[in-house]
Amino acid sequence: MKYENFSTFDVKVEGAIATVTFDFGTVNVQGQEMLADLNSLAMRLEMDRDVKVVVFESANPEIWVCHYDTELLQHLSTEAVSRDGAQLLDLQAICERISKVPQATIAKLEGFARGGGHELALALDMRFAVRGKFKFMQMEVGMGILPCGGGASRMARQTGLGRALEIILSARDFDADEAEAMGTINKAFEADEIDAYVDTLAKRIASFPAGSINACKQMVYESIDKPIDEALKAEAYWLYQATSKTPAVKRFTVAEEQGLQHDMENQRNWENMVMDVQEIS
Amino acid sequence: MKYENFSTFDVKVEGAIATVTFDFGTVNVQGQEMLADLNSLAMRLEMDRDVKVVVFESANPEIWVCHYDTELLQHLSTEAVSRDGAQLLDLQAICERISKVPQATIAKLEGFARGGGHELALALDMRFAVRGKFKFMQMEVGMGILPCGGGASRMARQTGLGRALEIILSARDFDADEAEAMGTINKAFEADEIDAYVDTLAKRIASFPAGSINACKQMVYESIDKPIDEALKAEAYWLYQATSKTPAVKRFTVAEEQGLQHDMENQRNWENMVMDVQEIS
Amino acid sequence: MKYENFSTFDVKVEGAIATVTFDFGTVNVQGQEMLADLNSLAMRLEMDRDVKVVVFESANPEIWVCHYDTELLQHLSTEAVSRDGAQLLDLQAICERISKVPQATIAKLEGFARGGGHELALALDMRFAVRGKFKFMQMEVGMGILPCGGGASRMARQTGLGRALEIILSARDFDADEAEAMGTINKAFEADEIDAYVDTLAKRIASFPAGSINACKQMVYESIDKPIDEALKAEAYWLYQATSKTPAVKRFTVAEEQGLQHDMENQRNWENMVMDVQEIS
Repeated sequence: MKYENFSTFDVKVEGAIATVTFDFGTVNVQGQEMLADLNSLAMRLEMDRDVKVVVFESANPEIWVCHYDTELLQHLSTEAVSRDGAQLLDLQAICERISKVPQATIAKLEGFARGGGHELALALDMRFAVRGKFKFMQMEVGMGILPCGGGASRMARQTGLGRALEIILSARDFDADEAEAMGTINKAFEADEIDAYVDTLAKRIASFPAGSINACKQMVYESIDKPIDEALKAEAYWLYQATSKTPAVKRFTVAEEQGLQHDMENQRNWENMVMDVQEIS
Repeated sequence: MKYENFSTFDVKVEGAIATVTFDFGTVNVQGQEMLADLNSLAMRLEMDRDVKVVVFESANPEIWVCHYDTELLQHLSTEAVSRDGAQLLDLQAICERISKVPQATIAKLEGFARGGGHELALALDMRFAVRGKFKFMQMEVGMGILPCGGGASRMARQTGLGRALEIILSARDFDADEAEAMGTINKAFEADEIDAYVDTLAKRIASFPAGSINACKQMVYESIDKPIDEALKAEAYWLYQATSKTPAVKRFTVAEEQGLQHDMENQRNWENMVMDVQEIS
Repeated sequence: MKYENFSTFDVKVEGAIATVTFDFGTVNVQGQEMLADLNSLAMRLEMDRDVKVVVFESANPEIWVCHYDTELLQHLSTEAVSRDGAQLLDLQAICERISKVPQATIAKLEGFARGGGHELALALDMRFAVRGKFKFMQMEVGMGILPCGGGASRMARQTGLGRALEIILSARDFDADEAEAMGTINKAFEADEIDAYVDTLAKRIASFPAGSINACKQMVYESIDKPIDEALKAEAYWLYQATSKTPAVKRFTVAEEQGLQHDMENQRNWENMVMDVQEIS
C-alpha cells in the first residue's frame, strides 16, 4: 500500500508499523485538508494486510492536533434539527472510521490536543502522553456547542460519568497525570520515557497475526455496546473469524507437543513465549 | 424564578449559581418532605433560563443527606412483582429528574452520604468530597433490600463492575480517598481546599452559554446508554440544539477574525481564552 | 448441598461461606475436567439457599488457574461462521453461568491467572490480588485468536476502552499494582494482608440476607446492560424480589422504633449497626 500525497501529515512504514506524523501549518489545525487526509488514510488502512500498528505523533513540539478549524465552524447552521434529521458531521464519521480500522492504533501525545484534536485521540485505541507537555481540553461548551467528533459520546466510555461531565462542562486544561488518573489516557510518561514504551508496545503488537489483532479490537468495541449475552455471541463469531485467518491451530498444536501446560518453568515465561511463538508460522 | 417554601433545604441564587443547603432535623433524613422539595426544585430548575449551575451542600457539619426515611421503608410491600408490573419508586423518579435538569449539578460532600443520600449524590453530575469528613455507604444489602434510588443502576457507570459489586455487597463505609481511587467521586480534598475548587468550577461553568451546558450534559448521559453509531447521531442532534440557542457562530467568527488558529501564543492560552470569549455576546 | 466429587478443585463450606481451592495437575489447567467441575459447581450453587459467599483460591503457590487447555484449542475449527451461526463456547457459557450464581463470588489471586484463567476471574464479582505474586495476561492475540471466555466482552466493563484494548492487544503480563490502577482487580495487597481483608469481607457479606445479596448482584450486572430508564425499572423489580424473601420490613420497623434517624450517634455508627441488625431475624 502506498501512503503518499497527504498534505497534513507524513506516513512512514517500517515493517508492520506505520507512523503518521502530523505536520500542518503553525498549529496542526483540523480542517478540510486534515479530514480528507484522515479519510484517505483510513481507506488505505482498511485494505492494507501488511501494516498492523499505526502510531500517530506530531512534528510540532507543542501541539499534537490543535482543534477543529474555526473557519468551518463559523458556517455552522443555527437551525435545530429533529433527532431523525441529524446527519453525522464529517469529523464524527472520519473519527469513527479511523477508530475501526483493522490495525491497532496508538496516540503518542507530546503536546496539546484540544477539541476535535483530542476527539481524534479518543477515537484511537490507546493513548500515551508526556508529563509537562501534554494537555487536553474540550472547550466546546464555552464556544456555544458540544464536543461533536465523538468526544461527547466516547468520554464516559474511558472514564466514569462524573469525570466525563467535569471534563466536558469545565472546559479547562487537564494535564498528563490527571488524564492518567481519570483513565482518558492509558499512561503518563516523562519526556524521555515515552518513546521506549510506545516502540516496544508497537513492535510487540506488530509481531502478532493481523487477523487476531483485528478480531480483538473489533470485539472490545462491540462489547461495550451490547448486553453481555449478545457480546458473548459476538466473541464466538470473532473467534472463528480469527481462526479462519491466522495460524492459531498450528500454534496450539506446537504448544501441546511441547508440553506447555505441564511445565511450571514455561508458565513463568509466558511473556517471552508469546513472542517466540511468532516464529512458528 | 423564585426558590422559596422549601422545608428541608434553603436555596440561594447568586448570579447564575444556585446553592442548595440541606438543613432538616438532626440528620437530614430523606423522607416525604425532602422528596417533595426535590421534586419541586427540579420543576423550577427545568423552567429556569438564568441559573446554570446548582451546588448541593449541607448545613450539618457531619451529614450531607443521611439516607431514605425508615418510617417509609417499614411500609414496603413484601409481595414480589412481575418485571412488567414494577413501578418506579418516588426516590428513583425524583433522583432521575434531578439528574437531567438543564443545569450542571455539583455535590459538595463534607459529611456522610449513605443509602438514598448517596444515591442522590450519584444522580448529580459531579461529586467532590472532604477527607476525614466524607464517608459513603450503601447499607441496603444488610437491611434486606437493594439500593433503589438509582444506586444499583448508576454505580457501575461511575466505577467498573468489580468495585460497584464490592460497594453494594459489602455495606461498609468508604472514605474520600477510596471514593476518589474508585471514581465514585471526581476528587478528594482537604477540608480547607474544597470551597476554592468548587467555587472556581461553578463560576467557570456558570459563565458558559446555558444551551451548550444542557447539550453537553444530556449528551454525556445519552452516550453511555447507546451503541456508538446511535450516540454519534445524538451528538449531531445536540450540536444543532446548541447552535440554535447559543452565540456559537458569532464566537467562531470572532475567533477566525482574530487568527486564533494561526497563533501559537493563543494556543498556549486556551484556558483563559475560553473565559475571555464569554464577553463577546 | 453436597459439594463432592470434583476432580480439579476442593470445596469446603464453613457457615455460609464456601471456599473453592483449585488443585489440578502441575499448573491448574482449564480443560474439560475443570469446565465440567465448574458447571456442576454452578448448578449446585444455584440451588443452595445456605451458602452466600464463594471464595475461589488455589493450592498452587504460583498459579491460580493457568489458562484454557491447549489440547482442546488445537482442535479449534478454522472455518469462519456467520454472526447468526456463532454458538457460545463451553468456556463462555460456564463463565457466564458462574458469574450469575446467587452468591457473592470472590477471586483471591495469589498467583498467575492468564487467558481463560483470567477470564474466569473476570466473571467473578470481585477480585483481590497479591503484589509480587499475581500476574495476569491475555495472550490470545499472539496465539491467533482472541480472549473467548468472556474476556473480550468483560474487559471494558472493568476498565475503560483504552486500557481494555492495551491489555488485549499487548499480550503482556500486568502485575497487581497495574491491575489495581486500571481497575481490573478491586485492590492489591501484600502477601500477608490479603487473607484478613478477604476473610472480613466474606464474613460481612455472609451475614446479610441471601435474597438481598442476590438482588444486589443481579441488578448491578443488569444496570450496565440497559439504558437508565430500563435499569431503574429493573431496580424496582429486584427491590420487591428482595422484600418478598428477606426480613426487610421487620428491620426497618426496629430501626424506626429505635429512633435511628433522629440520633447522630447512631448515624456515626452505621458500619457496626449493619452487622448488629443481622441478629434481629
